[in-house]
Amino acid sequence: MIRIVEVGPRDGLQNEKTILSTEDKFQFIKALTESGLKSIEVTSFVKAPAIPQMADALELYTQVKNSLGNLGVSFPCLVPNLKGYETAKALGVKEIALFTATSDSFTKKNINATIDESFDRMKEVAELAKQDGIMVRGYISTAFGCPYEGTMDVKKLISVTKRLFDLGVYEVSVGDTIGVALPQQVRSYIRALKSEFSIGKLAMHFHDTRGMAPTNIYVSLEEGITTFDSSAGGLGGCPYAKGATGNVATEDVWYLMHAQGLDTGIDIEKLAAASKFILGKVNRDTESKFLKAYLNTGKI
Amino acid sequence: MIRIVEVGPRDGLQNEKTILSTEDKFQFIKALTESGLKSIEVTSFVKAPAIPQMADALELYTQVKNSLGNLGVSFPCLVPNLKGYETAKALGVKEIALFTATSDSFTKKNINATIDESFDRMKEVAELAKQDGIMVRGYISTAFGCPYEGTMDVKKLISVTKRLFDLGVYEVSVGDTIGVALPQQVRSYIRALKSEFSIGKLAMHFHDTRGMAPTNIYVSLEEGITTFDSSAGGLGGCPYAKGATGNVATEDVWYLMHAQGLDTGIDIEKLAAASKFILGKVNRDTESKFLKAYLNTGKI
Repeated sequence: MIRIVEVGPRDGLQNEKTILSTEDKFQFIKALTESGLKSIEVTSFVKAPAIPQMADALELYTQVKNSLGNLGVSFPCLVPNLKGYETAKALGVKEIALFTATSDSFTKKNINATIDESFDRMKEVAELAKQDGIMVRGYISTAFGCPYEGTMDVKKLISVTKRLFDLGVYEVSVGDTIGVALPQQVRSYIRALKSEFSIGKLAMHFHDTRGMAPTNIYVSLEEGITTFDSSAGGLGGCPYAKGATGNVATEDVWYLMHAQGLDTGIDIEKLAAASKFILGKVNRDTESKFLKAYLNTGKI
Repeated sequence: MIRIVEVGPRDGLQNEKTILSTEDKFQFIKALTESGLKSIEVTSFVKAPAIPQMADALELYTQVKNSLGNLGVSFPCLVPNLKGYETAKALGVKEIALFTATSDSFTKKNINATIDESFDRMKEVAELAKQDGIMVRGYISTAFGCPYEGTMDVKKLISVTKRLFDLGVYEVSVGDTIGVALPQQVRSYIRALKSEFSIGKLAMHFHDTRGMAPTNIYVSLEEGITTFDSSAGGLGGCPYAKGATGNVATEDVWYLMHAQGLDTGIDIEKLAAASKFILGKVNRDTESKFLKAYLNTGKI
């Protein structure tokens, strides 16, 4: 069984220019639950002006919790700091995601902090979450390459992963933030990771900026990874390459798993409908070739 | 060393609606030679009204031969019948390509012949080519799946491949005409092929209709394949899924080989320039995510 963590509503929409209504976001999330996805990242509790698409985080999460809270679906939210954590806790969020990177240049530009400083922030939140019985997932950006520092050393990835597990996260999502990971690199980095950590606690988060995500996922599968992050319809762009693809589409992950005879629990017809809905709202075509062919032909 | 057979000027342009001038086609082929490609399929000697894009086959091949004939580049041309062969021979073509498929339904729709009848036509041409010292390459369409018959049995592929080698072709290009091949299938079909034939005489011809071509190429590499067909910029569409991708882009093949540390002899900057030129002429964007990111960022 393959677990897909759907990041479209948060990571995807965050990188879309069109600001959607809370109702559209809610309908999208509802449609995603109907497709069989069991883990859907809803929003991010950032300061209001920082990311306009996330300004309705409170309203959206409340609506999701009230209407979809009893479906057995996990609705993690991104929490950048203590303030965000307090909001999440007050709303009854059961799972949060914390994030850092392997590149100081990247964290400085992204969150105005070094990696060490990001751990100071996360430590405070992680300790409270532990006391409060809230699950914590950890994201690592720029695991394979950084827009400022180039190819990243696997030792940095091992070190940051260890520090995240030390904080008590249940899973670490290893992110190819700018879509530069290459199959051989993916294989060797996963081998290094699994010699240190339990592979069942590692997820891969690929971007398809250069069309290599399916191959990297194929290699990850061969190495024993069973959890993948993706975004319905390939929602979200790449801030580091104008007009380029960001998150790998959930449909692309589904297609590869289907090809390999692996179960994801996803109904592709319903997932494609959810993607079609939200792509219409942000007014663009999908970047997923599989989804495009599927919507055109009605056949897998 | 990886050998790439560039099929953009023929297989790619054949599926583009915009009819180009002979001069534009020639400039494209010239630019392709400058990128380091050593095998470039120029045109197809079909009856004039059948494929309007190929109506200038004589003029184009003549110009290519006269201007680029001494570069050590091979310029194969597709030959559908005896008439086409005679034209090719008269022009001094040194390598021709013959084609059939593993599906009778497909050959009937495509060339109004059964597979057996296609072999009758090819036999005549292949025998003359042998006498005339002209090299012959064989294409097999629908090797993995057919738009009319669905998934194709590997036994049909083995049988058609054997019949092509019996005709004296130096290489068989195994085509995923509608882009439905899946990694496991690719692995098992190649294993079946290489148990019967020399792997060095097999080429893979993938379409990226569902985004699986890079992964299928990766698997093919693992199985020992070293020759791949592709189309600069991903030129050409898929006649069986409106608006969908056809031939895998030569840039995508290059990127994967580069990632694996394998030499193709191609200068990516020059190749991307050739693709940009021709995509401008047919007035559309590339379907290659790598090429899109490369053109946007100027970086690999």
